[in-house]
Amino acid sequence: MKAKVHVMLKNGVLDPQGEAIRHSLGTLGFEGVGSVRQGKVIELDLAEGTTEDKVREMCEKLLANTVIESYAIEMG
Amino acid sequence: MKAKVHVMLKNGVLDPQGEAIRHSLGTLGFEGVGSVRQGKVIELDLAEGTTEDKVREMCEKLLANTVIESYAIEMG
Repeated sequence: MKAKVHVMLKNGVLDPQGEAIRHSLGTLGFEGVGSVRQGKVIELDLAEGTTEDKVREMCEKLLANTVIESYAIEMG
Repeated sequence: MKAKVHVMLKNGVLDPQGEAIRHSLGTLGFEGVGSVRQGKVIELDLAEGTTEDKVREMCEKLLANTVIESYAIEMG
């Protein structure tokens, strides 16, 4: 089974990568680009029967830094 | 309006970050973790009326390296 974890910086945390993208899009002539945030997506191939709680544990222990990042889990 | 772009390494392209995560999860005692792939998600705040074609152009020109990465656009 598959699980997908989205990890984004929390609001208010400075996102220099997103800022660099915003600036580069402007340089390339794209107009109307407001804020840009960059996050991670992690696709996991898991043994059948792995619970969402188990994936949450992976997030808390390794995949996300919960001080500055929030995460969302998508099972399926 | 918002757009979300998912950028993943194409199948067959070595993903050392994903591999590092897989290894660390094993070290932490999580069992049954098969392949792990890590990608990027980019959230863009765009002017009203920006078309998906415009976002596709951003992907082709800046957000994804289409030689080794594939992307998916989610408007909304």
